[in-house]
Amino acid sequence: MAKLKWGMIGGGEGSQIGPAHRLGALADGRFEFTAGALDHRADVGRDYAKRLGVATDRAYGDWQEMLAGEKNRDDRVDLVTVATPNATHFEITKSYLESGFNVLCEKPMTMTVDEGEAIVRIAKLTGKICAVNYCYSAYPMVRQARAMVRAGDLGKPRLVVTNFSHGHHGDATDADNPRVRWRYDPATAGVSGQFADCGIHALHMASFICDDNVEKLSADFASTISSRELEDDAMINFRMTGGTVGRLWTSSVAIGRQHGFDIQVFGETGGLRWASEQPNQLIYTPVGGRTQIIEKGEPGLCEDTQRLSRVAIAHPEGFPLAVANIYCDLADAIRGEMRDGLPNASDGVRSMAAVHAAVASAKEAGVWIDARPPMFR
Amino acid sequence: MAKLKWGMIGGGEGSQIGPAHRLGALADGRFEFTAGALDHRADVGRDYAKRLGVATDRAYGDWQEMLAGEKNRDDRVDLVTVATPNATHFEITKSYLESGFNVLCEKPMTMTVDEGEAIVRIAKLTGKICAVNYCYSAYPMVRQARAMVRAGDLGKPRLVVTNFSHGHHGDATDADNPRVRWRYDPATAGVSGQFADCGIHALHMASFICDDNVEKLSADFASTISSRELEDDAMINFRMTGGTVGRLWTSSVAIGRQHGFDIQVFGETGGLRWASEQPNQLIYTPVGGRTQIIEKGEPGLCEDTQRLSRVAIAHPEGFPLAVANIYCDLADAIRGEMRDGLPNASDGVRSMAAVHAAVASAKEAGVWIDARPPMFR
Amino acid sequence: MAKLKWGMIGGGEGSQIGPAHRLGALADGRFEFTAGALDHRADVGRDYAKRLGVATDRAYGDWQEMLAGEKNRDDRVDLVTVATPNATHFEITKSYLESGFNVLCEKPMTMTVDEGEAIVRIAKLTGKICAVNYCYSAYPMVRQARAMVRAGDLGKPRLVVTNFSHGHHGDATDADNPRVRWRYDPATAGVSGQFADCGIHALHMASFICDDNVEKLSADFASTISSRELEDDAMINFRMTGGTVGRLWTSSVAIGRQHGFDIQVFGETGGLRWASEQPNQLIYTPVGGRTQIIEKGEPGLCEDTQRLSRVAIAHPEGFPLAVANIYCDLADAIRGEMRDGLPNASDGVRSMAAVHAAVASAKEAGVWIDARPPMFR
Amino acid sequence: MAKLKWGMIGGGEGSQIGPAHRLGALADGRFEFTAGALDHRADVGRDYAKRLGVATDRAYGDWQEMLAGEKNRDDRVDLVTVATPNATHFEITKSYLESGFNVLCEKPMTMTVDEGEAIVRIAKLTGKICAVNYCYSAYPMVRQARAMVRAGDLGKPRLVVTNFSHGHHGDATDADNPRVRWRYDPATAGVSGQFADCGIHALHMASFICDDNVEKLSADFASTISSRELEDDAMINFRMTGGTVGRLWTSSVAIGRQHGFDIQVFGETGGLRWASEQPNQLIYTPVGGRTQIIEKGEPGLCEDTQRLSRVAIAHPEGFPLAVANIYCDLADAIRGEMRDGLPNASDGVRSMAAVHAAVASAKEAGVWIDARPPMFR
Repeated sequence: MAKLKWGMIGGGEGSQIGPAHRLGALADGRFEFTAGALDHRADVGRDYAKRLGVATDRAYGDWQEMLAGEKNRDDRVDLVTVATPNATHFEITKSYLESGFNVLCEKPMTMTVDEGEAIVRIAKLTGKICAVNYCYSAYPMVRQARAMVRAGDLGKPRLVVTNFSHGHHGDATDADNPRVRWRYDPATAGVSGQFADCGIHALHMASFICDDNVEKLSADFASTISSRELEDDAMINFRMTGGTVGRLWTSSVAIGRQHGFDIQVFGETGGLRWASEQPNQLIYTPVGGRTQIIEKGEPGLCEDTQRLSRVAIAHPEGFPLAVANIYCDLADAIRGEMRDGLPNASDGVRSMAAVHAAVASAKEAGVWIDARPPMFR
Repeated sequence: MAKLKWGMIGGGEGSQIGPAHRLGALADGRFEFTAGALDHRADVGRDYAKRLGVATDRAYGDWQEMLAGEKNRDDRVDLVTVATPNATHFEITKSYLESGFNVLCEKPMTMTVDEGEAIVRIAKLTGKICAVNYCYSAYPMVRQARAMVRAGDLGKPRLVVTNFSHGHHGDATDADNPRVRWRYDPATAGVSGQFADCGIHALHMASFICDDNVEKLSADFASTISSRELEDDAMINFRMTGGTVGRLWTSSVAIGRQHGFDIQVFGETGGLRWASEQPNQLIYTPVGGRTQIIEKGEPGLCEDTQRLSRVAIAHPEGFPLAVANIYCDLADAIRGEMRDGLPNASDGVRSMAAVHAAVASAKEAGVWIDARPPMFR
Repeated sequence: MAKLKWGMIGGGEGSQIGPAHRLGALADGRFEFTAGALDHRADVGRDYAKRLGVATDRAYGDWQEMLAGEKNRDDRVDLVTVATPNATHFEITKSYLESGFNVLCEKPMTMTVDEGEAIVRIAKLTGKICAVNYCYSAYPMVRQARAMVRAGDLGKPRLVVTNFSHGHHGDATDADNPRVRWRYDPATAGVSGQFADCGIHALHMASFICDDNVEKLSADFASTISSRELEDDAMINFRMTGGTVGRLWTSSVAIGRQHGFDIQVFGETGGLRWASEQPNQLIYTPVGGRTQIIEKGEPGLCEDTQRLSRVAIAHPEGFPLAVANIYCDLADAIRGEMRDGLPNASDGVRSMAAVHAAVASAKEAGVWIDARPPMFR
Repeated sequence: MAKLKWGMIGGGEGSQIGPAHRLGALADGRFEFTAGALDHRADVGRDYAKRLGVATDRAYGDWQEMLAGEKNRDDRVDLVTVATPNATHFEITKSYLESGFNVLCEKPMTMTVDEGEAIVRIAKLTGKICAVNYCYSAYPMVRQARAMVRAGDLGKPRLVVTNFSHGHHGDATDADNPRVRWRYDPATAGVSGQFADCGIHALHMASFICDDNVEKLSADFASTISSRELEDDAMINFRMTGGTVGRLWTSSVAIGRQHGFDIQVFGETGGLRWASEQPNQLIYTPVGGRTQIIEKGEPGLCEDTQRLSRVAIAHPEGFPLAVANIYCDLADAIRGEMRDGLPNASDGVRSMAAVHAAVASAKEAGVWIDARPPMFR
């Protein structure tokens, strides 16, 4: 089977996200790196792409040039990854979808809810794939968690509790470091800081595992480092359409937490816990029974989990291969086998609606606000 | 040094709390069990007290009889523990204080804020000790945490995050079990279920370690088992007087959590974490540095921690000896050396004010409410 | 029920072991501290005993005086604890047994196998209780482990792997500290250092949980700090009578391990793990199934475990209450209900035989040696 | 920079090892999959290679055909991976080296010490790279551990303790499963079962981190499932050239252990611990200080660790990327920058010598035996 052709926009030399996507796309041998517009400096980007093995005529200077170049080729790329600064995601994603490309967009998919709804409509109209890189949902044991909820192993979910907290922005003396500061400046980050950056992954995962959507929320934001205009700590209480109660804490000043992203789901007949720093296990307790450790690779896990695991039980698989799992799902989807777990434009717009709802709630002392995009009300 | 004389009200045969207090009082040999009114059935209580070694003339039928019997003795008890049903705490505690006894009251100290304020005033007036059994604060490593905050090891505390969650009331088919049901029935439990039962320990500990008081709060309550009138899950956002942001989650339907009581404090220059299921360690991270494990028994811990540890490093000490530490502090206080860490009537009334504030907030969609007793505003 | 009368020899002011025994004896209210010869300096010991509440006429100057004083009293002590320097255990234990006292002897019970066999014979002859303080075996979840092995939950045990390692003697610059040095000097410690001090607890526990005896062993000793005559690190391979394979590692130079005492038992149909730093859980895996966490206090545990637990599930109980459990078993035994789990003189002599076998094996490059006392061959 | 050309022998469809090597070679984009002889059935192997994107003329029927085809090409493969059954490793590796290819050989490199020494000599003579896939040594934090030992952070290593235990062969009813049985049958596995299969990884890592070689050893083997001719559980005591004491336990009947591979190194001034199920942390304790958690991605780690990490702190990287790290080192080595950490033919023959020494020792009741290949004595 020939490899699929893959192009990337952004992710230039020195970025973290570029190598993560390249590894994700290449690791399983289903894509080849065919085209790229990797840097906002045209020559730098072309040069870097060539060094990474892209043919000279497909090493582009910017995304417009790449779009013009690729759209008329018979051997056009099968998938374009958008890994540019946040504010540009909408325009690029829109343009590529409209020209008939499949797209994997980094989060956030857009900056506004309107833009997000536009992307959903365009994706539907064109029939093209628009995926969003909520890559944590592609960890094998997260897929298992969702399968267990769907299978009724917990009964109806009553409560979901999730955290995404770290302390890497906890040093006030480092707060002016440009790599930190932009996240708390509305001019660069938009309406929200830590919630939009990290919390939104947790909110997506709550929806993903519970197989339900956030309906309304109440938020409490804090800028614990007072020079920050945007929040560095947030608590979101929410309710899902099916009635599940949600609690989400996110922080960037939790000194000592490294990557404290975890989720617990409690239902009528059992509870589950998963933590991103120990991603190959799922902790399960049936009501009235003992806590059990479910291991990636044990017999009897769901099809999705088996498909997205590469090595035997207790051989850890980490974050880069969760990204690779998104590409596995995309390769299948491009080949015609849509994978139910692949996060898409609807997920993207729901996240954006939740961010804006949380910001509005926090400004109004935690008033409860509808968190759904208008199109999904 | 002669032992101090100790009496107990409540804690009859078959209760959990009775043996915990007896062990706490006797373990270190500083008290002898001298008097008791252990059961609401007078004869049963007298008989049980005698079997536990109390002299016949001090094995009483009820608390009034005990009060009458003890107050005129020259060798009256030095301390009375009140471990009766919650609604009776106020009257008993008040009566004993007024007759010049030192009291250790189980939590909640009272059912209302007014009653709580009354106890504070009486204790002050009489000069007697009125302690409240927030026993978790007497774990050696919790004392160490407070000492570190006071010493400035974290800088100013920005954020405190605490949970007290378990799943032992998560089985709806067991919800009518009388041992479970009373906690969710206003007739027996008062205005709050899980928050008043467990969450209040977490709130006390936040104040205790941060050495600050809760000023205002916003609450979200849920009865995830719909037959319950009172909440079985609650989230409290709060602010302390000094500006510290607080987050508190408590649940009794978190199936798989056994005794999920933990606390994290994050300040300007470091973070701390303590968990009640692993109480002999404290996890500390200085900003920009590595996470360290502080062990009970290591050199250099604070005086309070050393005084309240009994065995060498890494020999675990558990919950019953945290209760015993309260009695150690009480013995010292009765001997004239008041211990700063001993929870007192002010803690009791602050807790009650927070419970009532949370209930009011939850009823009003999370509106922020002053959580202080009027006397401390 | 009147309290039993308890006397202690050794455990003077400033020792660690004295308070541990007093707490163990007093915590559950079954003994009163009636007599003592607490210090090798007669006056100091008498004074300390009196300060601890012992009546003047039973505050003795040495063990001989106490023996003379107690043996003719009608209200003689029901139990004598021997917590003196190791080399004196034999003579004191022997003398008290011969005079008809029940004894709890600290480990090691004796210095030689011959002495150990003598104690076994005397205990049998007199019908008195001679217990040895292998207190780890009295942790509730250790009792549960043994009950599960006996119930066949693991099938026949194939393999037992146990470690007792710490790093508290790992600092060569502290090696001349008298509190450390004596353990590695044959003049004070006898034939073995770390194995006799800590390893023997692990060996006892292997026998205890597997309900079997060590038959032969092969040892590798090392003095990793070269100035030490006795070993500070040892590995013992052994075989039990029933064929179970054993592995035991013990070290005092494992810097970073605090109290690394754990045990794993693997049988035909399952595996168990217990660790002394997390003593309230037992980790169990049925063959082909998931790993489960068994919690102290969960429903359905064995009678012994229930009897020796004091507080509800997930409220930790630690080392001092394991010691207290030995006293609970002793109180029952004195009252006529012998507890099967109580370590006795046979355990004591088996340990001593294993120590001598290990020393001999280590000297002969690990040759396999019969580890049984002659009387049990 | 053009990609290097890579060929694989063995690793056919359905094997675990084939995908692991392909991912390892492709993930970082430094190799392309150019040639293959993937299956002992020529047509099946050719077909599979073509499906994986190998050109028809380089999809070979067996290793001899591939050798003949590649050796005369100007664009011959830069690296050949040998992932065939163990008994064939020697002949294939030898032949490719002699024809001037670089080789990555799966473990065991050979079946005998003589063969191993032959490979060392041939590699030296030809100047070609002969690497052996001790991939655990390529985990970033294992490299950090070695760097810390080399930097003297532990002082002189006194003691290394390592385990590699699992329970996946613990079910006697599954012992005749061909995927299990071959490992305990001398006809297929050679002289050793579990020690040669897993234990040897632990022994390599002890040498790797301590930067020293095993000099002599004493072994205790057991076939706890009695139908097995070869051992399923083994304990090895050893001494390194520099005097470090070693302890190694390996088991395949440790029911409940999934991938219990860990290592602890204790030196004069500190201790280290690493565990393969939590590979992104290293636990470090300086003598007299607190235990610290060192995180992959934290500032100041050694160059090797930084080079072989792909994603930010606390984003886990797992086993497949440890394999990829071997390929990273190989790509550098082929480009002329030999990486000191890359396991080579000397490691391969030392392992084989240790296996044979352990077997001989175990047969002679644990007699101590020189574990070095004659060429390194």
